[in-house]
Amino acid sequence: MRKVYIYDTTLRDGCQAEGISFSVDDKLRIAQRLDAMGFDYIEGGWPNETNPRDREVFERARDIDWQHAKFAAFGSTRRPGIAPDDDDQLRFLVESGAPVITIFGKSWDLHVTDVLRTSLDENIQMIEDSVAFLKESGAEVLFDAEHFFDGYRADAEFAMECLRAAQRGGAECLVLCDTNGGSMPLFVRDVVAEVVDTLDVPIGIHCHNDAGMAVANTQIAVEMGASQVQGTINGYGERTGNANLCTVIPNLELKAGMRALPEGMLAEITELSRWVDEVALVDRDQRAPYVGDAAFAHKGGMHVNAVLKTPTSFEHVEPQAVGNERRILVSDYSGGSTILHKLQHIYPDIDRKDERLREVLNEVKRREHQGYQYEAAEASFELLARRIFGDAEELFELQGFRVILGKHREGEMPFAEATVQLKLPGSDSAVHTAAMGDGPVNALDRALRKALQDKYPEIGRMHLVDYKVRVLDATEGTSGAVRVLIQTRNNGQTWGTVGVHENIIEASWQALTDSIIYGLTVAEQRDEGSDAGE
Amino acid sequence: MRKVYIYDTTLRDGCQAEGISFSVDDKLRIAQRLDAMGFDYIEGGWPNETNPRDREVFERARDIDWQHAKFAAFGSTRRPGIAPDDDDQLRFLVESGAPVITIFGKSWDLHVTDVLRTSLDENIQMIEDSVAFLKESGAEVLFDAEHFFDGYRADAEFAMECLRAAQRGGAECLVLCDTNGGSMPLFVRDVVAEVVDTLDVPIGIHCHNDAGMAVANTQIAVEMGASQVQGTINGYGERTGNANLCTVIPNLELKAGMRALPEGMLAEITELSRWVDEVALVDRDQRAPYVGDAAFAHKGGMHVNAVLKTPTSFEHVEPQAVGNERRILVSDYSGGSTILHKLQHIYPDIDRKDERLREVLNEVKRREHQGYQYEAAEASFELLARRIFGDAEELFELQGFRVILGKHREGEMPFAEATVQLKLPGSDSAVHTAAMGDGPVNALDRALRKALQDKYPEIGRMHLVDYKVRVLDATEGTSGAVRVLIQTRNNGQTWGTVGVHENIIEASWQALTDSIIYGLTVAEQRDEGSDAGE
Repeated sequence: MRKVYIYDTTLRDGCQAEGISFSVDDKLRIAQRLDAMGFDYIEGGWPNETNPRDREVFERARDIDWQHAKFAAFGSTRRPGIAPDDDDQLRFLVESGAPVITIFGKSWDLHVTDVLRTSLDENIQMIEDSVAFLKESGAEVLFDAEHFFDGYRADAEFAMECLRAAQRGGAECLVLCDTNGGSMPLFVRDVVAEVVDTLDVPIGIHCHNDAGMAVANTQIAVEMGASQVQGTINGYGERTGNANLCTVIPNLELKAGMRALPEGMLAEITELSRWVDEVALVDRDQRAPYVGDAAFAHKGGMHVNAVLKTPTSFEHVEPQAVGNERRILVSDYSGGSTILHKLQHIYPDIDRKDERLREVLNEVKRREHQGYQYEAAEASFELLARRIFGDAEELFELQGFRVILGKHREGEMPFAEATVQLKLPGSDSAVHTAAMGDGPVNALDRALRKALQDKYPEIGRMHLVDYKVRVLDATEGTSGAVRVLIQTRNNGQTWGTVGVHENIIEASWQALTDSIIYGLTVAEQRDEGSDAGE
Repeated sequence: MRKVYIYDTTLRDGCQAEGISFSVDDKLRIAQRLDAMGFDYIEGGWPNETNPRDREVFERARDIDWQHAKFAAFGSTRRPGIAPDDDDQLRFLVESGAPVITIFGKSWDLHVTDVLRTSLDENIQMIEDSVAFLKESGAEVLFDAEHFFDGYRADAEFAMECLRAAQRGGAECLVLCDTNGGSMPLFVRDVVAEVVDTLDVPIGIHCHNDAGMAVANTQIAVEMGASQVQGTINGYGERTGNANLCTVIPNLELKAGMRALPEGMLAEITELSRWVDEVALVDRDQRAPYVGDAAFAHKGGMHVNAVLKTPTSFEHVEPQAVGNERRILVSDYSGGSTILHKLQHIYPDIDRKDERLREVLNEVKRREHQGYQYEAAEASFELLARRIFGDAEELFELQGFRVILGKHREGEMPFAEATVQLKLPGSDSAVHTAAMGDGPVNALDRALRKALQDKYPEIGRMHLVDYKVRVLDATEGTSGAVRVLIQTRNNGQTWGTVGVHENIIEASWQALTDSIIYGLTVAEQRDEGSDAGE
């Protein structure tokens, strides 16, 4: 089985993305996770004078016991007109102690003359002697030929000569970069074929996605003979991003039958993708190939039928192969068979002609029209269905709540205090409690829990893990309808609930009470198995 | 110049996407906008018995005076074992009155036997006589060969025979569909070349993105001779989506020199993309090729330098060609030259060695560390800089605010009341006002405006257009740090501000006061030109 080497640059090129910034700890956590997954190379950053953070990364990386990966430092060829050992930046690379050093050099004549402002000959010399200088330090040296495809189009002979200079310097791999990301796939095919045919050094590929081609160009380059792939987790990167390794790796393994990660690791890639998004504070791309939440989500009634009969009918690979899962979505596109499928795990003996299925479907459609979304709020969907089936337990009756927020002057911390008054079933007197919080919803959440704690001590184990607010009518600002989505966790279980209202507190209250009711009735029963009947 | 026909299926296949649901009005608004942009075909939906919404779309579409596009109805071949005129679904298609009808039929033997559960011969017959039946009604008929590439791999002869059946029936175009989205580009290249070579009917291409190849496969198919492209705006579609026409169209025009839209329309495509996201209530894909906010955003210090010198150095096309714009991002990756570039429009004569530039940069880095993000909050960035430059006007001094929220019982509408106490410069007594709102931030916003209205009547023209909340530490739920982003508009100007705090009200207060101060000082001056000096 043909092996393709995976070179991750999330920690260097990925950080060029809008909105992404990793701390030293973040970088080392991600690097160690990639190492454990069996990535071949992990580029940690550019350790130079103006970048103390990356210098610290390499300092701390020296003490890590790497299992599989080689930790790589990134930099550039020397400046024009000086000797390599007079170049501080090259010295920092050597001092980083990284076992692999990747340097980029220009391979597009325009860049040499207009940006670097030196001669083409000097550029060739800079590549050759910078690579040779780094080789002497004992590191494995890779050469990134910046703008290679644009350079090839402008002056193929000069671009090839840049590669040959790196080869003469002793580079272990020549990486063809589509730095501006604008190259079309059939052109990439022809150029890679030509380079692989001409040169006798391993070839790598490094693509950007400015024309939506990063993944395709990478795949084609490998099929034409490239043996190293550079990219980032989730495609983070400058402008439109780099080749997304969470797509590239499954394509190489599942479509081309090649080996990219050690056996068994492909099934971890969905979890890896989502974990890195969490560390990077990036909203997940729902539609990402292979690893997105929607990658195996079926909505159209006819497709749902077909995929339940014959999975390959609308799934190009098995979701399990990449650690993802099939989802059947409830929406106003849903027919009875979607609702039936969703409710069968609650009511295994339900008749597909049961009138209540239609009632649930109609209620879902009515509420989606108001702005509810059940796709991320399955707990609210289940409670809605249980209420129609006459099977929901109401745990309390609200007699009122009140939240007071205040701040006395600029610079002072504001306060939030909530009071809640509830009537519990089987009790004549009302519970009346109060709590402070970091904001109105947090105060309300705490007061509500406090009011229920005596009767339902299990509530202490549940906690909110995410709270999202979306204004639905963007032209109205804070006065538009608001959708609140809440995620709650108890031990291993997580559930989502939704509320919609013009008033954000009412929308939050709906999602909050659904989350607590679901947690105390449905989730609790599932957790305790045979104790469920009480 | 070679013309490629653009067939948009946002209103049909796009609606299969998780989270997308269009009303009849939405569909017609989008269709008319695509028509005005010069799209060739617009697929409006599947008008059948169980889909009254799409039947209404076609009813209302008949009264529209289409400028350029043909409005197309979508459906399937007849059911097995009956005559075409006994098939209700085909009848609904004819009755829709659409001038173009696109029907899909199976071209993968597995689907015929396992999903449709009929014979291969009957499938061939269904394709031929369904197309012929629709042709008799006078419509232009296109045939979507579902799962064509998977079918070709499984049994090329059968897949080709399905195309020939549609050709015999009189189909005007045979559309090769990669329905499961799993085909690799060089395979698509070979198959399309073979089909174009063998058959004498125009060929179309319809790709899904499950392997990240939809845009590449579409481009390659056109380069191999396909003359019609099917896709959706922003790539909406089932699972990972369809080919994104906002990438495909610029690629065809700018990379392959073909004609897709009428001259001049390509420069409208960024605006189209963003407008459709608004109508669909979809968060913009910041990283989308060509049209994304980050598509021409530069962050790394060295790249910023280069792109300001020589734009083609890090931009594959001119942003203006697609109606987008270059952005220089402020971040902790920024060097002095980014801050300098941002501040030059405020202080044209600033010296690049000015100590305050460094101070601004350090303050930005310090705050980004706390969770502030200035990339979407340029007004807050400008106020921060102005404060350091000693050039910010403080409009009031807070003496306290208080918000009271309450609800008396389930089903009752909650209320929100805010009081604000401010001291205005040049006045001894405090202004003390109160206002109700649809939520705490809305009430606070109203009370604050009321308190300022007498002194700054211009405030009446400004309004919040968006309010976004993000919990930064997802493991802490409502107790984590919260980032609030606010967008405010006055006439044509829109500006973004940011606030970060553990308390959502404090974070909102920061963003709110920044938005009002910026609006009353900076934005107002720019708007009024020579009146600015007062």
